[in-house]
Amino acid sequence: MNRLEALEKIAKRLRIHSLMMTWKAGSGHPSTCLSMADLAACLFFHEMKFNPKDPEDWANDELVLSKGHAAPILWAAYAEAGIIPLKDLMDLRKISSELEGHPTPRMKWIKAATGSLGQGLSVGVGMASAMKLGKSPGRVFVVMGDGECAEGAVWEAANAASFLKLKNICAIVDVNRLGQSDPTMHQYDLAAYARKFRAFGWDVLQVNGHKVDAILEAFKKIGKKGRPTVILAKTIKGKGVSFIENKNGWHGKPLKEDELQAALKEVGPMPDVDAAKYVRLPKRVAKPKLIRAFSFERTPYKEKTATRLAFGYALRELGKVNNAVVVLDGDVKNSTYTEKFFEYFPERSFQSYIAEQNMVGMGMGMAAKGYIPFMASFAAFLSRAHDQIRMAAYSFSNIKLCGSHVGVSIGEDGPSQMGLEDLAIFRPIPGCVVLYPSDAFQTEALVEAMAQHQGICYLRTTRPATPLLYSKEEQFPIGGSKVLRKGPNDVATIIGAGITVFEALKAYEELKKENIEVRIIDAYSVQPLDKENILREIADSQGRAIVVEDHFENGGLGDAVAAALAGKTAIKHLCIRELPRSGKPDELLDQYGISARHIVGAVKEFLAGQ
Amino acid sequence: MNRLEALEKIAKRLRIHSLMMTWKAGSGHPSTCLSMADLAACLFFHEMKFNPKDPEDWANDELVLSKGHAAPILWAAYAEAGIIPLKDLMDLRKISSELEGHPTPRMKWIKAATGSLGQGLSVGVGMASAMKLGKSPGRVFVVMGDGECAEGAVWEAANAASFLKLKNICAIVDVNRLGQSDPTMHQYDLAAYARKFRAFGWDVLQVNGHKVDAILEAFKKIGKKGRPTVILAKTIKGKGVSFIENKNGWHGKPLKEDELQAALKEVGPMPDVDAAKYVRLPKRVAKPKLIRAFSFERTPYKEKTATRLAFGYALRELGKVNNAVVVLDGDVKNSTYTEKFFEYFPERSFQSYIAEQNMVGMGMGMAAKGYIPFMASFAAFLSRAHDQIRMAAYSFSNIKLCGSHVGVSIGEDGPSQMGLEDLAIFRPIPGCVVLYPSDAFQTEALVEAMAQHQGICYLRTTRPATPLLYSKEEQFPIGGSKVLRKGPNDVATIIGAGITVFEALKAYEELKKENIEVRIIDAYSVQPLDKENILREIADSQGRAIVVEDHFENGGLGDAVAAALAGKTAIKHLCIRELPRSGKPDELLDQYGISARHIVGAVKEFLAGQ
Repeated sequence: MNRLEALEKIAKRLRIHSLMMTWKAGSGHPSTCLSMADLAACLFFHEMKFNPKDPEDWANDELVLSKGHAAPILWAAYAEAGIIPLKDLMDLRKISSELEGHPTPRMKWIKAATGSLGQGLSVGVGMASAMKLGKSPGRVFVVMGDGECAEGAVWEAANAASFLKLKNICAIVDVNRLGQSDPTMHQYDLAAYARKFRAFGWDVLQVNGHKVDAILEAFKKIGKKGRPTVILAKTIKGKGVSFIENKNGWHGKPLKEDELQAALKEVGPMPDVDAAKYVRLPKRVAKPKLIRAFSFERTPYKEKTATRLAFGYALRELGKVNNAVVVLDGDVKNSTYTEKFFEYFPERSFQSYIAEQNMVGMGMGMAAKGYIPFMASFAAFLSRAHDQIRMAAYSFSNIKLCGSHVGVSIGEDGPSQMGLEDLAIFRPIPGCVVLYPSDAFQTEALVEAMAQHQGICYLRTTRPATPLLYSKEEQFPIGGSKVLRKGPNDVATIIGAGITVFEALKAYEELKKENIEVRIIDAYSVQPLDKENILREIADSQGRAIVVEDHFENGGLGDAVAAALAGKTAIKHLCIRELPRSGKPDELLDQYGISARHIVGAVKEFLAGQ
Repeated sequence: MNRLEALEKIAKRLRIHSLMMTWKAGSGHPSTCLSMADLAACLFFHEMKFNPKDPEDWANDELVLSKGHAAPILWAAYAEAGIIPLKDLMDLRKISSELEGHPTPRMKWIKAATGSLGQGLSVGVGMASAMKLGKSPGRVFVVMGDGECAEGAVWEAANAASFLKLKNICAIVDVNRLGQSDPTMHQYDLAAYARKFRAFGWDVLQVNGHKVDAILEAFKKIGKKGRPTVILAKTIKGKGVSFIENKNGWHGKPLKEDELQAALKEVGPMPDVDAAKYVRLPKRVAKPKLIRAFSFERTPYKEKTATRLAFGYALRELGKVNNAVVVLDGDVKNSTYTEKFFEYFPERSFQSYIAEQNMVGMGMGMAAKGYIPFMASFAAFLSRAHDQIRMAAYSFSNIKLCGSHVGVSIGEDGPSQMGLEDLAIFRPIPGCVVLYPSDAFQTEALVEAMAQHQGICYLRTTRPATPLLYSKEEQFPIGGSKVLRKGPNDVATIIGAGITVFEALKAYEELKKENIEVRIIDAYSVQPLDKENILREIADSQGRAIVVEDHFENGGLGDAVAAALAGKTAIKHLCIRELPRSGKPDELLDQYGISARHIVGAVKEFLAGQ
């Protein structure tokens, strides 16, 4: 059996798996799996080189399934490659299975969660940049839908890839003509996509996405022009099953039992081919030596300094001891002060221009390849990338974000430039650490802490210079707080962070003149909040608390403290407290603690005085 | 004096104003004003037709300054046109002035706040669509920076404009080569921009942006190809002041006193020309007759129905009585059920494809022209447009958003498709109404309420069908709540919304069997929350509250209730409670209630027992 025949057979196996899996699950997107079955077969069993024993092998080619709703065929390909047992496929979308409705890194070959469309290309660009930096021979393949090419983030990524001259990335657009609710804007006008990608500096190839030989020919040309390559593959949604082929209304719809039988009859019996034999291993290469030290030389500040400037110095010093640190900035490096790092480490610095979504997506890709990306912009503009940040959290991604110019304290530029919702959009992100320093020393310590912490972290920096409160030696653990003023006669506790700490200290002095004493807490770790200590201090100061913050009313430190205090007024809060997984609605309501059973339990706990 | 000479003189006046204003303010972006001075003169005093007495005149051409940091020259143009007094210019960025650092609709000629780059084109596309729908002869001009063309949202908008065949929109890109921190990606490679816009279906013109005659020639060609037009204007940042011309490092920097004097000497004396004479009035046209009725025929539901489906029916019925209602959907209309409206009112329906940022930006533009846009997507994907939603709020925009498929209750599709942070990202938005219906009748009532409410509203709908709880006649005011179960022996209050109301009702039944009685509240108005009633019910049920919601821990209903309860544990929360304006940092800290003085006041209130 020659390779072409084998690939055709493998494609048929992938089709059959996709149909069966989604039928069994009772939900999912078989038609979009069928359109990319031949592409998937050619990728996994011919073009991509990867070590099926090690998803972290530095020589691996990487794949990002940007059209995440085609997850079943991805799982099927991994099964055919021998990476997961074939029998697991029939557990698709079960609550016990890692084979979710859309890919997440719970399945260890997945480097970034997808399912929010238009994000995969940025992740791929980040991976390709990291692989170039770390001298991996591997390439990155990003499989995209045609519909998602309407997302602006795709064009931010396309821009970046050509600007960075990444010849190690190949996007494959599965042009199957149909979106979820309608035909796509360009339908089968492949020339329209070609014009766009060419205008954005890509080498464009067009193929019939169901002709294995044509696909392999196209693959040979990847990167040959020294530019990123896109393969526009004309395909048929539902290919292989005549009654769903190229028909609207079959986007997220599994086959019913009788439909499945008819479909399987059309596709034919499961071909006999050992796909795993066709997996191509890469040559072994050494991983780049990343020195992951975190303790860096602190700046001996002598006078008031903006926390954003201290962030810049800290990044630079961190960069000297840790070569896994890379920095991205959205054309505001002279405001966020990442320029301090850019000047020292140009090869690890990425000017991301005014394209925050791609910046964050690239960071996810770099983190997936073992780097520690710090990304900075005005806090207000990070809201542009909230969907990417959300998906980064769902990817358990080790990214670090810094938002500068927060609150009204920036002054005259006006509300569009003031970060006033940033705490609110980061606090709900599961597992996200949210830090808000008041002085330069604290900022440097928090930069070290966030670099060392595995997971997504957000640092909120202030535009104006603020006085020095602490010393070079002081420790600021994540989840901590600092009591700045305390006495036996305190009548209230004032809780601030960042700029308002200084307002609180001024208030302290004013009150003292009238013999009124208050406690002051610097709640620099907004999340996790130092609840226990804060509550104790409040209780110890006649139970009065004042939260003061430079942020809109809802979702910030006020809510955080209120939520912490609420326990004292007998609230119990039932809600989703971890990243949920695929499963049936009732199972999920129950597993994550918001079903009737849990409510009954909570009431009983109350009555038992708990 | 011929028109060309006059325009050159006006341009010089605009330059002088820009230099003086930013010098006086001590901050701002003069160099980017200078690069667009000739374009601004040609626009305001030749090409655009507008009635300087009425910013709402239906025949007006509209201008969106997407590069919002060039606000000073916009204010200068309005002053030269006689719309605002010339002397007001010197109040730029003062806290008392409407002439802010970046444009906001506090100045009544501004239809949408700008300053978060890359958003203006979408707003323009929305305006142009509305003007086409309402048969305005006016056109829309969007002045963009070259740097902001890196934003993906620009390409989403470019796509939409050509797809919608809008020949009444003209984008002008001020290609001044320099971004904030670095030269732009393409610098003076105008052909690169031309390729991109052409690929996205636009007619592309290139001009020297400092040659008045060339600019006027280009203007004559606008819309002539039946497509949207972009004018790529090659300009010099800082044009007219040799020592800042085309130099990096002068992005957001006003001149110092001596620099100003040198600059004014170079530019020459203030030319004598009465610019207002050159304003061109449009022909009078009738405004479209928009019938703004809100009371629509309710569906007599008989069995359990998904709130998302009820939303679709309500939109359709609302559309029958109110022709100001337009609907946009991001290729999920068969899931959000906006298709119910699309089927009835194709001319008022806008398939926005998978481009949520542009969808929201277009909605802002349509609202600015008097329409009532409803926009829908999965709640999870509205996070993609958070920056646009934020700017819509800063624009006091009358937009209505619906996010479907919230929480784990969507089932198997997995976390990327679950709206789990949506309440958290909408709650901080100032003035945003957040509604979360549990049954179909309530959904319809809330759609009516949000249509009637002036301002930004968010409706959270659920995927699975939920039982009917209410009747066709029941009233659900914004800011209300419903007590569903109540008795004299209640030992706790359970507060839910949407899907969890039903879980609470199940719990009620379980508890009743054991003779335990609880109160149940449907908190359908998450924001504003019905605080008073909710607190009273909690107090009346032995002070115990359980909040249960299908949303991540932070930022949702739990925080909202905790914040409401916190008053009972003697919290005072000082924070920004309204949209702040430009001003000096200390002024702003004080004006918005977070300075030392306010903290002192709060402590004293506590001590006085308030």
